Amino acid sequence: MSKEITSRTQDYSQWYNDLVIKGELADYSAVRGCMVIKPYGFALWENMRDQLDKMFKETGHQNAYFPLFIPKSFLSKEAAHVEGFAKECAVVTHYRLKNDPNGGGIIVDPEAKLEEELIVRPTSETIIWNTYKTWIQSYRDLPLLINQWANVVRWEMRTRLFLRTAEFLWQEGHTAHATSQEAVDETRQMLDIYAEFAENWMALPVIKGVKTESERFAGAVDTYCIEALMQDGKALQAGTSHFLGQNFAKAFDVTFSDKTNKLDYVWATSWGVSTRLVGALVMAHGDDEGLIMPPKIAPLQVVIVPIYKGDEQKAKIDEKVVSLVKQLKTAGIRVKYDDTDNARPGWKFAEYEKKGVPVRIAIGARDLENNTVEIARRDTREKSSVPMDGLAERLEQLLVTIQQDMYNKALSFREQHISKADSWEQFQQILNEKGGFILAHWDGTAETETKIKELTKATIRCIPLNNELEQGNCVLTGKPSSQRVLFAMAY
Amino acid sequence: MSKEITSRTQDYSQWYNDLVIKGELADYSAVRGCMVIKPYGFALWENMRDQLDKMFKETGHQNAYFPLFIPKSFLSKEAAHVEGFAKECAVVTHYRLKNDPNGGGIIVDPEAKLEEELIVRPTSETIIWNTYKTWIQSYRDLPLLINQWANVVRWEMRTRLFLRTAEFLWQEGHTAHATSQEAVDETRQMLDIYAEFAENWMALPVIKGVKTESERFAGAVDTYCIEALMQDGKALQAGTSHFLGQNFAKAFDVTFSDKTNKLDYVWATSWGVSTRLVGALVMAHGDDEGLIMPPKIAPLQVVIVPIYKGDEQKAKIDEKVVSLVKQLKTAGIRVKYDDTDNARPGWKFAEYEKKGVPVRIAIGARDLENNTVEIARRDTREKSSVPMDGLAERLEQLLVTIQQDMYNKALSFREQHISKADSWEQFQQILNEKGGFILAHWDGTAETETKIKELTKATIRCIPLNNELEQGNCVLTGKPSSQRVLFAMAY
Repeated sequence: MSKEITSRTQDYSQWYNDLVIKGELADYSAVRGCMVIKPYGFALWENMRDQLDKMFKETGHQNAYFPLFIPKSFLSKEAAHVEGFAKECAVVTHYRLKNDPNGGGIIVDPEAKLEEELIVRPTSETIIWNTYKTWIQSYRDLPLLINQWANVVRWEMRTRLFLRTAEFLWQEGHTAHATSQEAVDETRQMLDIYAEFAENWMALPVIKGVKTESERFAGAVDTYCIEALMQDGKALQAGTSHFLGQNFAKAFDVTFSDKTNKLDYVWATSWGVSTRLVGALVMAHGDDEGLIMPPKIAPLQVVIVPIYKGDEQKAKIDEKVVSLVKQLKTAGIRVKYDDTDNARPGWKFAEYEKKGVPVRIAIGARDLENNTVEIARRDTREKSSVPMDGLAERLEQLLVTIQQDMYNKALSFREQHISKADSWEQFQQILNEKGGFILAHWDGTAETETKIKELTKATIRCIPLNNELEQGNCVLTGKPSSQRVLFAMAY
Repeated sequence: MSKEITSRTQDYSQWYNDLVIKGELADYSAVRGCMVIKPYGFALWENMRDQLDKMFKETGHQNAYFPLFIPKSFLSKEAAHVEGFAKECAVVTHYRLKNDPNGGGIIVDPEAKLEEELIVRPTSETIIWNTYKTWIQSYRDLPLLINQWANVVRWEMRTRLFLRTAEFLWQEGHTAHATSQEAVDETRQMLDIYAEFAENWMALPVIKGVKTESERFAGAVDTYCIEALMQDGKALQAGTSHFLGQNFAKAFDVTFSDKTNKLDYVWATSWGVSTRLVGALVMAHGDDEGLIMPPKIAPLQVVIVPIYKGDEQKAKIDEKVVSLVKQLKTAGIRVKYDDTDNARPGWKFAEYEKKGVPVRIAIGARDLENNTVEIARRDTREKSSVPMDGLAERLEQLLVTIQQDMYNKALSFREQHISKADSWEQFQQILNEKGGFILAHWDGTAETETKIKELTKATIRCIPLNNELEQGNCVLTGKPSSQRVLFAMAY
């Protein structure tokens, strides 16, 4: 047991922070609510980003880059949109500093006040749709399938590393279409891509669904989402894909002429995932020893630690490992040989456990004699002695197995934590005692949704896609309902 | 001749804008001084970024991410640094908008004023060295080799697409070392990497040198740079690498204990290149028909255009091209088959010339009969008919040839535009009539440097590395000088 890391049962929230900080994913910064993403954390994000980027490009999307700043008046053009973001905006009001003539040091130059304030983008629909206005005239310009990797700022009052930070990194797709159906299809396609990424790359099972009206993105007609379950039984929204209808096209007057020369407003989608996914990964897979990285996106998949006494043994191990590393790299395995002499093997073992490296290999003098190595799996902590011959193939298979096992474990946990509640008592009891997702009937009103939230802090995470229709009665009001929706406490 | 593009002789500055806008690299935005990087321009930047990133990682650097915002007090901690950036800072003063109770729409909420203003980073030395303070204790923590890909903001009064924008994308490396020599070596290594990238990937010959004191980065002990020559005879600084000495370590109190347990301040470097490189590429290689992309970083290397009458011919060409495209992609060539039916071949030819695609292939009915294709080089505009068999190998070779020829052409232009001036009259005459770089003696004083700038607008671009020592007299003052320095008008 790592003494540095608080256990989950002791303090789940502190455990999470310990994993992020001591696993060297991120650090607090001097700027309120902003974090520093450390090299190990950033390498993880790069692997996630590169895979998502590949999936976006394979489905015909191109990257572009739009300004960081949004004129205040733009934000106001879509009524629901500004309502949703006005309360958490970083506002640029001046463009120059100067020396205080009264000796007060460096001050904001009052003469350098902007005519119109600029908002640091909380999301880019407005600046992008203002641009699309000049790019789109005819149906031949559609669909326009654009994605942007960017930083955004939302001045949240309560922040958590990765889960909720004032500045975060994300991608935001913004597409334009000639028909409503095509835009809906795009919205659903991107939701599927997010789900595929979460499940196949992050080993994180998710439930696809659609948000209720009150949980919708500010300016959307429909918000689709993927919802994951964390080990404390709370849900985490891992990605959203919005069908925006013609709302932004109308706000920014973006029309196109169709094949018959008829003018119509353009149909829109937007969709995004962020560095929040790193937080999801930490909470879904970590244990009391530290992080556990899914092999497919692990910055480092295999670490090799030598165990030796004296320079002579070390030299022999080095010689063997150099050729092993070469073999593993040729097989495409991300491997590191840690032969630094400033720490004992046991200390290194704990370090790489904290960082969640999927496989650790130890090689000592006896291993050299026997032509074996010791392999330790991070996820199960199982150890075994295996022959050096054919190690690359064995590891390739093992990494696939670990990836699958991690997914299965998370899926099994999730399946054990989806309950049905058919009465208000049962609903409260499950929430308080077991946690997790609750499938329950709801009368479909925002009023009841709010009431349930006030009473229990649980929210409707989504109406699952392909939901079975089933007659029942609202768990709170008893009014008739035709399907169960998914409730949970959430991050 | 493309009528849309202004010729270089007619209006060089307009020609540049035409290439950027009509070549679809970027667009103006609604935010003063900020641009939109369009998909084609962003794909170019991605190729440049990916190659640089690879070179950084191969030399042991890791990526990380630091906050967008810098507390005002941080900027003030290094005196020269704040002096250099205070006049062009975007300042965040508030964190919330609200509805004007007097009906004036959405306004900045006066109650949401920040206690300390935040500066949108113009560069990140201060926030990074404030962080390094907690990361560095011992020589074992050094060297720390970190790079960041980020957006930065400098509120420039006069902006030009890519060359000088209020917001731009860049990378900034920030390294920490135990000795002065190691930091100097790092500074020089990164300069070499920039030069290698410019020359081997952008086909852009550069002169490596060191800046005079007055052109140094704000806070640096020495600024190294690479300087390139544009077709109008003006120089463009394409990248800088700074030896920061212990200036930032002292400002942020970053010390380390060496092997003997002695405390010392850490030695620093920083280095960066930006989307400005895209502007350099446009101006170094473009012609009056449009952009010319160096094959190694071209978003698209080969475009195939079918020439046909009727669906039957089209179907036959399609069949052939599908297998050709497959062969080219297998060979790693970035190829596109443009079989859209909404434009004639001539129009498509002009479009891809504007976009600077290195090789265009046309296939018509006669080509099918003869089993040939027509190849057109963008750089020389030469056309030739070649057999379809072995096309992939031929194109691979051709792309290498084009890359080399583009470099040679730019180098030859540069060599023809480096002149020596031994008198003030000669100096002025060369500047006015021929332009380009001028190697001339200078008395080493900031006063003379300023005077020359005031009289001619020419600046000292750098003192070239490995400069020959040569006794002479300052071209303006006649005072003795031991070496020539490199002057030019510059972007």
